[in-house]
Amino acid sequence: MPEFSAPEVIITKRNKGELSTDQINWLISNYTAGVVADEQMSAMAMAILLNGMNRREIKDLTLAMIASGERLSYEGLNMPTADKHSTGGVGDKITLPLAPLVAVFGVAVPQLSGRGLGHTGGTLDKLESIPGWRAQISNQEFHKQLADVGAVICAAGSGLAPADRKLYSLRDVTGTVEAIPLIASSIMSKKIAEGTASLVLDVKVGSGAFMKDIASARELATVMVQLGADAGVKTSALITDMSTPLGLKIGNALEVEESLEVLAGGGPSDVVEITVELAREMLRLAGKTDIDVAAALKDGRAMDKWRQMISAQGGDPDAKLPQAKEQHVVLAPESGFLSHLDALAVGTASWRLGAGRARKEDDVQFGAGITLHAQLGQEVKAGAPLMTLHTNEPERFERALESLADSFKIESSAAERKIILERIK
Amino acid sequence: MPEFSAPEVIITKRNKGELSTDQINWLISNYTAGVVADEQMSAMAMAILLNGMNRREIKDLTLAMIASGERLSYEGLNMPTADKHSTGGVGDKITLPLAPLVAVFGVAVPQLSGRGLGHTGGTLDKLESIPGWRAQISNQEFHKQLADVGAVICAAGSGLAPADRKLYSLRDVTGTVEAIPLIASSIMSKKIAEGTASLVLDVKVGSGAFMKDIASARELATVMVQLGADAGVKTSALITDMSTPLGLKIGNALEVEESLEVLAGGGPSDVVEITVELAREMLRLAGKTDIDVAAALKDGRAMDKWRQMISAQGGDPDAKLPQAKEQHVVLAPESGFLSHLDALAVGTASWRLGAGRARKEDDVQFGAGITLHAQLGQEVKAGAPLMTLHTNEPERFERALESLADSFKIESSAAERKIILERIK
Repeated sequence: MPEFSAPEVIITKRNKGELSTDQINWLISNYTAGVVADEQMSAMAMAILLNGMNRREIKDLTLAMIASGERLSYEGLNMPTADKHSTGGVGDKITLPLAPLVAVFGVAVPQLSGRGLGHTGGTLDKLESIPGWRAQISNQEFHKQLADVGAVICAAGSGLAPADRKLYSLRDVTGTVEAIPLIASSIMSKKIAEGTASLVLDVKVGSGAFMKDIASARELATVMVQLGADAGVKTSALITDMSTPLGLKIGNALEVEESLEVLAGGGPSDVVEITVELAREMLRLAGKTDIDVAAALKDGRAMDKWRQMISAQGGDPDAKLPQAKEQHVVLAPESGFLSHLDALAVGTASWRLGAGRARKEDDVQFGAGITLHAQLGQEVKAGAPLMTLHTNEPERFERALESLADSFKIESSAAERKIILERIK
Repeated sequence: MPEFSAPEVIITKRNKGELSTDQINWLISNYTAGVVADEQMSAMAMAILLNGMNRREIKDLTLAMIASGERLSYEGLNMPTADKHSTGGVGDKITLPLAPLVAVFGVAVPQLSGRGLGHTGGTLDKLESIPGWRAQISNQEFHKQLADVGAVICAAGSGLAPADRKLYSLRDVTGTVEAIPLIASSIMSKKIAEGTASLVLDVKVGSGAFMKDIASARELATVMVQLGADAGVKTSALITDMSTPLGLKIGNALEVEESLEVLAGGGPSDVVEITVELAREMLRLAGKTDIDVAAALKDGRAMDKWRQMISAQGGDPDAKLPQAKEQHVVLAPESGFLSHLDALAVGTASWRLGAGRARKEDDVQFGAGITLHAQLGQEVKAGAPLMTLHTNEPERFERALESLADSFKIESSAAERKIILERIK
């Protein structure tokens, strides 16, 4: 490999130049090895954030991060594989009903997930509210469960894209998270290294998401779909609304509860709609078309698969879920239609109630969070409960209520809500 | 002091926001204390480089760096003080004759200097070629010499602007050197902390300088003059040409030799012109006008002062200066006028001959460098010596000659050379 100096490579991007494939490979392999220092990589990340990268550079960056670690494969598996990744949103528990639902139709779902940081929850935190359930499983257990059950949601091992792991922690403390080239290469390097044959991306847009406007969401989705295609992974994306929370329950155990409602054939219509749409898209990419996905929610097949999936990782699907000790009810101040309910405000309130963590080493409260009694567009009556706040520590109510103060509007009418905004193939 | 988080402060500048005085004070004091990490400060430096800072922010940054350490004062001294700072150039030995020349007229010059890194030499490296001369002197010796002789050139102690010292090393390895807010605050924090009452800046422009065009040089000069005024230091600036080397000699001992020629009333006209102009400006700021500065070079008063200044720091003004063991002469390939002689190429060649260092821990060769036999605009004859290269290690000639290959042009005429381009008060 040609040799470069870190300042020289940084200055190329600082001066709005295009980094060569050799420069990117040199940078990422030497950063992984500790030769390029954190302070050099963070200056580079800021230069990328402010000056951008073209498609070729983003592809090279992603491939270099994949090459920094191992890449899983499912050669012995007699099923096609499909996975889903969401860029994260408030009340986004879709992975929980989705993985077993897709597995019902003979498509395996190898879902390697992370924990939450900030106002959006992590899938592993939610599942850990189920007594006995283990996020850490061995490579052997992972492959056996995938073959036997067809669905695994577990913690990603440290061997996948270690350069991304290192860079992600660095970006978190240096104000360089919100860059499309860095977000896209981070997500796609992990998903491609994970070895899935097809991938559906749920790119969230709105106050509760990373991407605040449709143009950035579209750009991120387009870049990621192209990266998947370049790496031989069949990839498509849905752009979905995250201006208001998804479903009626926000918080770890609360979101498991709502997932169980969906798996039992009920649940809020928005959660059902996204679950079914994402399942259809995953099955389509895996070569299975014309399938009545919703039927498997109604007739119990998806619930059976869920129970197998949870049990296989030590979880008790019949155990009572943790509940918070204290509740506080917010009443509707007037009658009308809920015309505005801000995702970020609700997500932040839930986080302040103890559902999320401020630092990596913090614990989460499994029972903490928020139950909505009305969703955007629904009618409310003055004096009736609008939302219930849950926490073990009542001193947390005040700061949560502060976040909720201007989070909603009740008006004489409300616009119709659209959940799935665009599709990118 | 209000508390901030480093990512929050970085993101403010990343998003082209204005940093508050509190944010800047928090950042610099916590960076000095090690609470804000290097990787955070380098992301910040890149954001400043790409998004800029307004005058108020640059002033706050400079004051915060001054406040990170001690500030000298000359209360007991019965003389006004004046100093000069050059942004650095090839063959720029002006400090050497200038300090004793100004001291002749009863204005004290407390010049705290640094060492060279890259293609421009450091004042201390040049003086250290004088046998016995010491750059490190105690605080007491410093004040005594200033009172007795009126001129001191020595190494800056680590107590002045320690934040700048830390930030400067970081910028060097993270591709964030060339930012006007960072260059201006770095220079001015050290000079203001040094305690001088007046300051003349020699801002170089051209291939051999940091600033490659007159607009950036003017901006840097204007920002620094304003910073000086804000801090109560009478400050003005000359913008001078650095597209071609200053004088005929480049290298440590070689530049001392040429300085002695100037102090003896001779020397190349460009070196004499800048020395006299800077001396006049320093004396004017210190309240001394209508002085025949050049006379003190002709009549030996400046040379006497030089001898006192060198002796006071252990140097032998009569000692033979080190000479390089090997010489290589470059002949003029044709007859005509020297119409182009590139400062960066000559500076790089001198550096490759051993006059400069690649890393902080390297030693320099005192005798290495280049002697020019003609300056820009002068007539040359085909086959006559154009320049002589000096080094102790003849294997260095090849790389030095590579740098010089396209460094000059000989044509039938040459434009008139202008040395002092602008004055900023």
